[in-house]
Amino acid sequence: MNTPQRNAVILLSGGLDSATVLAIARHDGWRCHALVIDYNQRHRHELDAARRVAEHLGTASVVVMPLDLRLFGASALTADIAVPKHAEQAGIPVTYVPARNTIFLAIAGAMAESLAAQAIFIGVNAIDYSGYPDCRPEFIEQFERTLALGTKQGVEGSPIRIIAPLVSLTKTQIIARGTELGVDYALTHSCYDPAPNGLACRVCDSCVLRSRGFEQAGIPDPTRYSP
Amino acid sequence: MNTPQRNAVILLSGGLDSATVLAIARHDGWRCHALVIDYNQRHRHELDAARRVAEHLGTASVVVMPLDLRLFGASALTADIAVPKHAEQAGIPVTYVPARNTIFLAIAGAMAESLAAQAIFIGVNAIDYSGYPDCRPEFIEQFERTLALGTKQGVEGSPIRIIAPLVSLTKTQIIARGTELGVDYALTHSCYDPAPNGLACRVCDSCVLRSRGFEQAGIPDPTRYSP
Repeated sequence: MNTPQRNAVILLSGGLDSATVLAIARHDGWRCHALVIDYNQRHRHELDAARRVAEHLGTASVVVMPLDLRLFGASALTADIAVPKHAEQAGIPVTYVPARNTIFLAIAGAMAESLAAQAIFIGVNAIDYSGYPDCRPEFIEQFERTLALGTKQGVEGSPIRIIAPLVSLTKTQIIARGTELGVDYALTHSCYDPAPNGLACRVCDSCVLRSRGFEQAGIPDPTRYSP
Repeated sequence: MNTPQRNAVILLSGGLDSATVLAIARHDGWRCHALVIDYNQRHRHELDAARRVAEHLGTASVVVMPLDLRLFGASALTADIAVPKHAEQAGIPVTYVPARNTIFLAIAGAMAESLAAQAIFIGVNAIDYSGYPDCRPEFIEQFERTLALGTKQGVEGSPIRIIAPLVSLTKTQIIARGTELGVDYALTHSCYDPAPNGLACRVCDSCVLRSRGFEQAGIPDPTRYSP
């Protein structure tokens, strides 16, 4: 590496969206540090997927941070609440994890400051998503202002940017962009309720949005589903 | 308990300020749930102090959440950087922990939602403090707005309030108020750099602000200092 690169923290979950975000950040010339948060989620296959994706796309470093959100529960992803089958329901689904992206961005902010990084990348998406309040652009913008006020870098004139490159893309556009950038989506994991062997359920919100995205992008879906 | 009480999450560190906050919240009629964050801080005696204070003042529940901020370091409280002696220096000291209050409030937000709590109490103080950006009222107000946008409760019309009852009090006023409310400050721990047996160093920022507060309040300082 001969040219100095700007550092960025990439929130990497192991899912399709954050893998695409990492590919975009790499393509845009950032030196990428992956932050994987092990929040004791039901779909722990995500964590292995995150490590595979980081290795496949290349990162300067990977931190896996344990944070046991099961201490609070109150979500189908962190408590003994059934993951529902996909339905085009109104409102916020039971897979909502209280304040999850606020927590993740806050921890990413600490990592960014420790690296003197200039940006945090997050794969939120307000189009083909599940109705979570913390995936909306107005939340992301507000969080960026909060971090500017609450950090040394912000006060000293180098506020950390929050970059959400997928925020106004459809799932189809995300898959098309990632494919263009060489993302191997077979390495990613999206299902909220996988079988013990990791095969995807095909019927949760996350599976339905994912498989529809591949179909509409005209790209073969590499996901391994339960029979 | 015959009357229904409103629930609040209290960020409890084991220090003087958050003990006073818990006493104030109790006095104001809140049902208090303590959140103690074990961030692998150098001054781990704080954690025992937090448990003692919770028991002494009374809480409906206590959650101790491990969160290893040593993974990032970059602070005298979470890395092998010497804790400086107190000096009236300008700027943000090396005891600043990147994004600490942003992280703590975010986790408190998750706990608050899981309890359907209406408020988070935090003992930040912008008068006799150490120059941390995340102790200022403008940061607290901004965080409250962010949490309103990023949580289910916020979107559904019951945003979580962030209450910082000490924000414009001097250390002397804090100690006077807590003493009035029966806080036993002998149970609290403030020193950033205690001896292995827990005795306070007397010379770090935190010790100096604390002992000056007792002196000016005309209240005997119960702190056990290293000889």
